[in-house]
Amino acid sequence: MKTPKAIENLINSFEKLPGMGHKSAQRLTFYLLHVPQTQLDSFAESLKNLKTKTLFCSNCMMIDETDPCSICSDSSRDQNIICVVEDPVDVLALEKGGTYKGLYHVLHGKIDPLNNIGPDEIYLEQLFQRVKGEGVRVKEIILATNPTMEGEATAMYIAKQLKAINPELKITRIGRGLPIGADIEYADDMTLKNAMEGRSEI
Amino acid sequence: MKTPKAIENLINSFEKLPGMGHKSAQRLTFYLLHVPQTQLDSFAESLKNLKTKTLFCSNCMMIDETDPCSICSDSSRDQNIICVVEDPVDVLALEKGGTYKGLYHVLHGKIDPLNNIGPDEIYLEQLFQRVKGEGVRVKEIILATNPTMEGEATAMYIAKQLKAINPELKITRIGRGLPIGADIEYADDMTLKNAMEGRSEI
Repeated sequence: MKTPKAIENLINSFEKLPGMGHKSAQRLTFYLLHVPQTQLDSFAESLKNLKTKTLFCSNCMMIDETDPCSICSDSSRDQNIICVVEDPVDVLALEKGGTYKGLYHVLHGKIDPLNNIGPDEIYLEQLFQRVKGEGVRVKEIILATNPTMEGEATAMYIAKQLKAINPELKITRIGRGLPIGADIEYADDMTLKNAMEGRSEI
Repeated sequence: MKTPKAIENLINSFEKLPGMGHKSAQRLTFYLLHVPQTQLDSFAESLKNLKTKTLFCSNCMMIDETDPCSICSDSSRDQNIICVVEDPVDVLALEKGGTYKGLYHVLHGKIDPLNNIGPDEIYLEQLFQRVKGEGVRVKEIILATNPTMEGEATAMYIAKQLKAINPELKITRIGRGLPIGADIEYADDMTLKNAMEGRSEI
């Protein structure tokens, strides 16, 4: 028996998603056969609208409904400080925390030579333009790329470039150390080293 | 910052899928932002067509493009033997093996009292009708529900009912034992018990 075309098409679509194998795609597809048509239609609608109803903020590269985005156009936020992150989800995570009140800059990736992603493949030039730009004076850049090998290298590269543009700019790296709930016994060497170096007086 | 509506809608749609948490739904949604619009459109199209372009086979309850399905209408297959399975994916798995040449009956579930699924909630009555029906004489029923507690109970229930309908009907249960590649050392007691009981001469 051949799998019906309509089922095969959906399995193929699911399989294109990251981390989704053939079996999982099949499982989801057959699950959806038992779901009301209205739910399928609204799922389809959300997929179609995902990119058509969202905009890139031309200032910080965040994704939002407006350009400039709601963060860049919020005058109550500190316009002198920019937090540089890898992905839009990082902005959402930091905003959920609610402690940071400055602006953002989304790189949409990280420098990753093994995957052929160099400085020109991510939104770095736009960050440099923002620092160079007239008008609002940027005073601090927080480098909040992930504490992975690529994230660290990206942070290093950005810091070096920014220093060349403006030697007086304050450039900081997001704090690294033990996360809440962690166990020193099971922490890796790099995390412990970072925790030691990043210790603070109490 | 509020998550844009278009993004939130898609996250919600993904979250309704089984085994999908909020973080995974978010990850998939933000991944899809980097995908061409044509891929999103074809994904949406497959979702819309999933149920509209497939049919329930009124004979075996399998899902296919035609009714009766390609298996039921294939006269080269043995019409005297019916293999009872829980889900359509089980048919695909057995068909991939290619050794079985009879018909199927898809229950679309299993008797599962803890989840309020009784015999009337799955396609059991249709199976009994096929056995009772005039014309083609069913000679054997293979009970191929999963070897889980619910699957075993469902098989027991069906066997009892079928015997009441036709005491001469041959009713078999799919073979249970150690799967290829397994390790006796790590097998559970039930599997070992089944393997012992299901031993065959060589």
